[in-house]
Amino acid sequence: MAEKNISMAVIRRLPKYHRYLGELLNKDIKRISSKELSEIIGFTASQIRQDLNNFGGFGQQGYGYNVGELYEEIGKILGIDKYYNAVLIGTGNLGQAIVNYPGFNHSPFCIKALFDINPNIIGTNINNFEVLDVCNLSKFIKENNIDIAIICTPKNSAQETVNELVKAGIKGIWNFASIDLEVPEGITVENVSITDSLLTLSYLMKENI
Amino acid sequence: MAEKNISMAVIRRLPKYHRYLGELLNKDIKRISSKELSEIIGFTASQIRQDLNNFGGFGQQGYGYNVGELYEEIGKILGIDKYYNAVLIGTGNLGQAIVNYPGFNHSPFCIKALFDINPNIIGTNINNFEVLDVCNLSKFIKENNIDIAIICTPKNSAQETVNELVKAGIKGIWNFASIDLEVPEGITVENVSITDSLLTLSYLMKENI
Repeated sequence: MAEKNISMAVIRRLPKYHRYLGELLNKDIKRISSKELSEIIGFTASQIRQDLNNFGGFGQQGYGYNVGELYEEIGKILGIDKYYNAVLIGTGNLGQAIVNYPGFNHSPFCIKALFDINPNIIGTNINNFEVLDVCNLSKFIKENNIDIAIICTPKNSAQETVNELVKAGIKGIWNFASIDLEVPEGITVENVSITDSLLTLSYLMKENI
Repeated sequence: MAEKNISMAVIRRLPKYHRYLGELLNKDIKRISSKELSEIIGFTASQIRQDLNNFGGFGQQGYGYNVGELYEEIGKILGIDKYYNAVLIGTGNLGQAIVNYPGFNHSPFCIKALFDINPNIIGTNINNFEVLDVCNLSKFIKENNIDIAIICTPKNSAQETVNELVKAGIKGIWNFASIDLEVPEGITVENVSITDSLLTLSYLMKENI
């Protein structure tokens, strides 16, 4: 499959395709045209054909897409057939929401441990994990082949935590702290910026979009 | 200011400009060139000039941007000088994280009430709010001029809740449930899809980006 030079705009649409195709499969729908897919997913049919052509194209003219095949292929492109070990740092409300998040079941990420800095929380139990002391973070990362860190710390301690994680050999960061992290080349960062989304909502409300 | 036909890609960069300019102001930095701004924010200088020109341009060639003025103007464009009443529905971990979210202090949104469906949670206190019964939602929206609803319910009850909200006259929705909501034209929806971000991280890890 030709996967070169795919823009991030296309990549960011793939999870949505994957989600909708999964729902079609649940309803036992086996074939779908780009036109029908367009009606349920909200992208234009031409956008859909263009997006999927980026990855070599899965459709057959006049027959539409094979839903199961397309779902599986997009899953492979998204890398959900891989396996990564993760730790989560910061077990406040947001951290706990992420630990309990049902989406992990269909993802390649497996949480191995939770860390916090608060002595009142260290040693307590969250979702069958004992919360560990953040001072043992580097050691744990190195000894347990941890690939990913989920950052749910307050904004002002996120960069310091990440510096330590990078030194310990982490490969990817899922960042929920509303701060742009500085990392060396080769480290993957995906941000979920609640602040930016809040301000975007503000703009959209003002413009009545 | 000419604000017509601004693409969503530009809009989604504005909160980041606003955030960085706020940090510069905190450091008492009063002027900045597009080149210097580029170094800290990570967009190219030409991208920055192009983005800000969309709104009439604030820079003066050779003098750079007035940080305070630019911060204030972008704030106005984002509509943070407005005021909206909000309710939050679904007070699980994610809902509680949002209620306690410090970003609200710098936003135009003010949470007026929390709602839940769980009889064990209704009547309890979260962050100085008594959790109300979701069966009183429509009445509350109408009687208290609520503009915005923050959806933190499970995925499978989100659409039903939103249908009720729309009937009650809500104008905007901040959606944390990993589902694409159907709303009539004229209702603003801003999604924070944790699932989509998780799958994007999966892709980026696979491709080592």
